[in-house]
Amino acid sequence: MNGPVACDLLIHSSSELVTVAGGTQRPKRGRGRGDTGVMERGAVAGGGGRIVAVGGPDGVRRRAAVGRDTVVIDASGKTVLPGFVDPHTHVVHAGSREFELGMRLAGRSYMDILAAGGGILHTVKATRAASLDELAAQTRRRLDVMLAHGTTTVESKTGYGLNTETELKQLAVNRRLAAEHPIRIVSTFMGAHAVPPEYRDDPDAFVQLVIDEMIPAAAGAGAEFCDVFCERGVFTVEQSRRILEAGLAAGMRPKIHADEIVPFGGAELAAEVGAVSADHLVHASSEGIRRLAEAGVVAVLLPATTLFLMGEKFAPAREMIEAGVPVALATDCNPGSSPTESMQYVIALACTALGMTPAEAVAAATINAAHAVGRAHETGSLEVGKLADIIVLDAPNHQFIPYKPGINLVERVIIGGEIVLERSVGR
Amino acid sequence: MNGPVACDLLIHSSSELVTVAGGTQRPKRGRGRGDTGVMERGAVAGGGGRIVAVGGPDGVRRRAAVGRDTVVIDASGKTVLPGFVDPHTHVVHAGSREFELGMRLAGRSYMDILAAGGGILHTVKATRAASLDELAAQTRRRLDVMLAHGTTTVESKTGYGLNTETELKQLAVNRRLAAEHPIRIVSTFMGAHAVPPEYRDDPDAFVQLVIDEMIPAAAGAGAEFCDVFCERGVFTVEQSRRILEAGLAAGMRPKIHADEIVPFGGAELAAEVGAVSADHLVHASSEGIRRLAEAGVVAVLLPATTLFLMGEKFAPAREMIEAGVPVALATDCNPGSSPTESMQYVIALACTALGMTPAEAVAAATINAAHAVGRAHETGSLEVGKLADIIVLDAPNHQFIPYKPGINLVERVIIGGEIVLERSVGR
Repeated sequence: MNGPVACDLLIHSSSELVTVAGGTQRPKRGRGRGDTGVMERGAVAGGGGRIVAVGGPDGVRRRAAVGRDTVVIDASGKTVLPGFVDPHTHVVHAGSREFELGMRLAGRSYMDILAAGGGILHTVKATRAASLDELAAQTRRRLDVMLAHGTTTVESKTGYGLNTETELKQLAVNRRLAAEHPIRIVSTFMGAHAVPPEYRDDPDAFVQLVIDEMIPAAAGAGAEFCDVFCERGVFTVEQSRRILEAGLAAGMRPKIHADEIVPFGGAELAAEVGAVSADHLVHASSEGIRRLAEAGVVAVLLPATTLFLMGEKFAPAREMIEAGVPVALATDCNPGSSPTESMQYVIALACTALGMTPAEAVAAATINAAHAVGRAHETGSLEVGKLADIIVLDAPNHQFIPYKPGINLVERVIIGGEIVLERSVGR
Repeated sequence: MNGPVACDLLIHSSSELVTVAGGTQRPKRGRGRGDTGVMERGAVAGGGGRIVAVGGPDGVRRRAAVGRDTVVIDASGKTVLPGFVDPHTHVVHAGSREFELGMRLAGRSYMDILAAGGGILHTVKATRAASLDELAAQTRRRLDVMLAHGTTTVESKTGYGLNTETELKQLAVNRRLAAEHPIRIVSTFMGAHAVPPEYRDDPDAFVQLVIDEMIPAAAGAGAEFCDVFCERGVFTVEQSRRILEAGLAAGMRPKIHADEIVPFGGAELAAEVGAVSADHLVHASSEGIRRLAEAGVVAVLLPATTLFLMGEKFAPAREMIEAGVPVALATDCNPGSSPTESMQYVIALACTALGMTPAEAVAAATINAAHAVGRAHETGSLEVGKLADIIVLDAPNHQFIPYKPGINLVERVIIGGEIVLERSVGR
């Protein structure tokens, strides 16, 4: 037994300390009903950017040596949680497409909207045209909003370039903001997000470009994951497999947009290639769900997307949880199908639209989300040795997140032991 | 033509100025697609708490005389709107019931929850037990959150007392906070919110108590409206009619909780008694909708309630709009079925869950909501002579409200010409 460890941060909670402990390296844990490691009185201490003690106040007091410079936060009546991990976003993009909502409400189809200059190619055009500085500035504003809503780690995909130059510009934005912004950024290459207009007549040639030119370039530019939109009318299962295998060969672990619009075999492909996550899954088959569970693939569900697109059904979260699939949640933050930056909003929808319990939804937005981006060894739960990425909510318990939809309950955000944001909820 | 009028407040918008003009005294106006009086460049000037000029920047400059003490707000790139009117809330209550969400998700019925000490009677017990000071303090916090989300007028119902003493205590909270808090409060008496346990065996005796004792007392204590929960298992159509007629005789205009859970004839009763609004209406019949349109009753829809209760269907907003019913939106802010304080969240749901256009939803949350609480002559739109109740959103247009669900876009709130709140959205 070692002696006390010097701590530069100490948070006391007299209400709820939610550790979400027990999930690291074991994605099937931390998703049970109520299994969020909730303590009614607890404390967490940080030192050198990491958690040095967590648990009951007496144990933490014995383990953590408080000094003159220790920042002490009295979180009486508040809820202390790991920072949210948002494991699926397209946050690097130029412009916005709010005008499409009115068109969809007026009954216009996706093809109509595309023909009217909307849809993903609208964003591709704007993102290609934007300078690196402009693109970084627009993205920084969205990261500010994410941070203010409690997100401390965010996955950020390319996929609005669809040419090597712009895909690399998106990755350069990730690298710049990772250095400049307190939020932690995980880079994913998704050159195969859509077939660009210049390859409309020969999608296979575009796939070959992705494989031959973009993937090696992206792997050298900081992308850790390779993603593909495997869907009817976008990329086939066979094309998706080739891209993900090429990504893997270049050192990028696979992720996949699967079974969003129709059942298409995306979940099955995710299991086959050993994807770290399969995302969307609104129409995943029962066989696909069984294979995800078997292969330990994290299902990343995006209920804000389904609601914003006024979909007829939501992803079968309960079936997945019962089947043993680790379920994570994400905003999908993007200009077309889910512009929100708030993980709290997504957690609320997970409860009321997906039927997840508040405890399941919190685990899905923290430890399971960290698994979905390969960061569960260092964030996503409050455990000794992990990064001190912590949020304090002005709420008596974690159930308040779905209880107060549309309200940002965050009072403090701490990243790597530093308080990076303080705010008041009634403001 | 008069000369220029002195102004103490001037707001310029280079983006969108949304007046929602044209609806006053004519509830059927202001609800059409796009009929929100959107100007792409505009200005609004206030003097002595009221709007003295509104329209194009040149016209406003001619009409409003800017002096040394005029507060000038540069809302370049922002959206300027009338403050939201929240026309249906139960904001005066003690305690919270977040624990019921987990019970509902676990499949427990309303009756199970009631038996376990939950449900409305849980809140009645807490509200009866709370002192006036405690009850005012808890309510004040919720009003702060409403204000921070852009609500400038809120309707506030009694109905957690179910005895004369506590109903009057709730009205006293309304009066106290109307004096102390910048938000404008409209008082509604709703003693007939549920049958209290002490009258379980004789509901008619409770109805008689409401009529003989509570209604005269409430009318003398500032209540302008009388509401009743007309629903199977709560109050019958006949009981509801007696209560609303007694309220009317005491000077309180009728409102009604109608057809929320089953079709029950509530909409028809609203038309018959000339209610100012009929609220919920999820299961209103087509005949009921026709009669609401005929009688000019405002339909107050509460989509946040439906989602929070995981209802199988939402109110038929499009059918109502097509039938010529003026539709308003409200939070229903209450501890059991809709705890949110945010009208922006409700507007977002109105678009994606009710199929309303962003323009219809904004009119429903401003001018039509003002009609639903008898305040359309003085608030709910930006028109000369009305109160200068104005919000500035950090958004390029009003479509951003549904485009950014879960995000509070409010940057400034102005009530009666005074800036009562300033905040930053990325915080």
